Amino acid sequence: MEKNIVIGVDLGGTRIKLGAVNEKGNIIKDLNIASEAELGPEAVIKNIIKGAKELINCGLFPKESVRGVGIGAPGSVDIDGSTVKYPPNFPNWGVVHLGEEVSKGLDKILVAVDNDANAAAAGESKFGAGKEYSNFLLLTLGTGVGGGIIIDNKVFRGVTGAGAELGHVSIDYKGVPCKCGNIGCIEAYVGQKYFSQRTIEQLKDYPNSKIIELVNGDLSKIEPYIIYKAAQLGDEFAIKALAEYGFYLGIAIASFINIFDFELVIVGGGISAAGDFIFEPMRKTAKERVLSVHKNKFKIVPAQLGNQAGILGAAALVP
Amino acid sequence: MEKNIVIGVDLGGTRIKLGAVNEKGNIIKDLNIASEAELGPEAVIKNIIKGAKELINCGLFPKESVRGVGIGAPGSVDIDGSTVKYPPNFPNWGVVHLGEEVSKGLDKILVAVDNDANAAAAGESKFGAGKEYSNFLLLTLGTGVGGGIIIDNKVFRGVTGAGAELGHVSIDYKGVPCKCGNIGCIEAYVGQKYFSQRTIEQLKDYPNSKIIELVNGDLSKIEPYIIYKAAQLGDEFAIKALAEYGFYLGIAIASFINIFDFELVIVGGGISAAGDFIFEPMRKTAKERVLSVHKNKFKIVPAQLGNQAGILGAAALVP
Repeated sequence: MEKNIVIGVDLGGTRIKLGAVNEKGNIIKDLNIASEAELGPEAVIKNIIKGAKELINCGLFPKESVRGVGIGAPGSVDIDGSTVKYPPNFPNWGVVHLGEEVSKGLDKILVAVDNDANAAAAGESKFGAGKEYSNFLLLTLGTGVGGGIIIDNKVFRGVTGAGAELGHVSIDYKGVPCKCGNIGCIEAYVGQKYFSQRTIEQLKDYPNSKIIELVNGDLSKIEPYIIYKAAQLGDEFAIKALAEYGFYLGIAIASFINIFDFELVIVGGGISAAGDFIFEPMRKTAKERVLSVHKNKFKIVPAQLGNQAGILGAAALVP
Repeated sequence: MEKNIVIGVDLGGTRIKLGAVNEKGNIIKDLNIASEAELGPEAVIKNIIKGAKELINCGLFPKESVRGVGIGAPGSVDIDGSTVKYPPNFPNWGVVHLGEEVSKGLDKILVAVDNDANAAAAGESKFGAGKEYSNFLLLTLGTGVGGGIIIDNKVFRGVTGAGAELGHVSIDYKGVPCKCGNIGCIEAYVGQKYFSQRTIEQLKDYPNSKIIELVNGDLSKIEPYIIYKAAQLGDEFAIKALAEYGFYLGIAIASFINIFDFELVIVGGGISAAGDFIFEPMRKTAKERVLSVHKNKFKIVPAQLGNQAGILGAAALVP
């Protein structure tokens, strides 16, 4: 019989994924339910509590063996590990003491909340590519670029909980405007829309690229996945576009290694599936640019948790 | 009678400054002796031990009240807090177990060694502008740009001791080449020689600048101090040059705050004496560029320890 169980909750704008996770990082049972974010925070909280109860009472382990609930939430989470502020795609949310409310609904069980990038870092630390390391950085590639910093096996959150925004480090102070208001943030080079837009512009010079074929000439349909697919088909422009993507990340990673002196950087999320198309140029650029003392001392590796990252990361937040 | 004394040792290429420091950060007695770096590490170690002994036996406090020796060293210091590797301006040095050797010569007293930027951060944390903060960043401006990171009142050193190289964060991946091999490091914009060189180039468009007068037409004599002096005299170009200097730092600081979510950045070293000529544009740029959550939450202040920073910083390294 399993013991020492944690409920991991991956809170999204449309779906909530929940899992009962054991010490080894196996998901014993999971659930996928509607968030009903449009109904406001009370509905979301009710849904989380309902889902967690269902898992706690699933009968695959004693109820008493559940030692806590971890929630990975979008948006900004306070240093208190409970309060979620203005998450994107959650209308009428504002400032909600999510951890506290969920705990109330579950007999005051221990609840730990953090943003999804920090949760991903916690997950890779406990169950994934960072298991053997006490210190590492994580980048998650998606619409934006999330960051996680693990110092001495703990998530580093800064003073207010808003730290580790590694996507908002400028690599060119007079470069591409970022929607955060800054200029040249790495997110403005490798965030999904920025990358797709840049590719569309560059395609003018590559009228024979397979990318155009893959979207049947409708350039508005271009997204990172299509570019990757074209690269797999041997399309030279697509390979070049992904290499440029890796190059930009490598620049930022070199700066991060000079700051942190860490030996591991984990890169996960959507387009990281493109593998060596982006990892090789990323490694090359980072190695060329770091201080000489670091040149042969760091690794850049893909995240390991894949589809389970959301639930396992959330579960790993529980201390 | 004083008790709880620490000997702070500021090791430079030509001089060693030593001080007996009490808990309040007062230097009870100090010494300034030749490093004799040209004679190799044994001579330097002998000089440090000799100087420390002189202070320990000065009679102003019981010998037994000295609880350790802190050494701020140039170059790179290992995570062991003892080993100093290839310090610039120390010929024939290589890899030296400085802390261990000094401890041997002083009845196995506790010795803590770190690089000068980390020592400066420790000093500001214990005795200076960072006294009221548990977390802050320090930038020291000089030939290069040194960095110090204080997390939970401790110096953050990375995994090998080579961390906190805040001067080697690129603000423009296709910008000014840095002598470290990277491109666009903040040091390549505000390091002493780079700044002087940029000023000399820009002066072509400002033939009436007071800077030219101050160096009697010999542009090779331009250094940050001269530019500051011209700014004090109301020279418009000099004021603009210092504002540009502050602007570059502000860009890097915005990225640092997005990473660390700290509420304090301390800026010290040479040209920081130019005060508001650089601090105002630095604050303005950082505030414009940080994520909105940080906009009104951080301060950028000058270092407080001034001439005593070397000795007090070294002393603060002793735990």
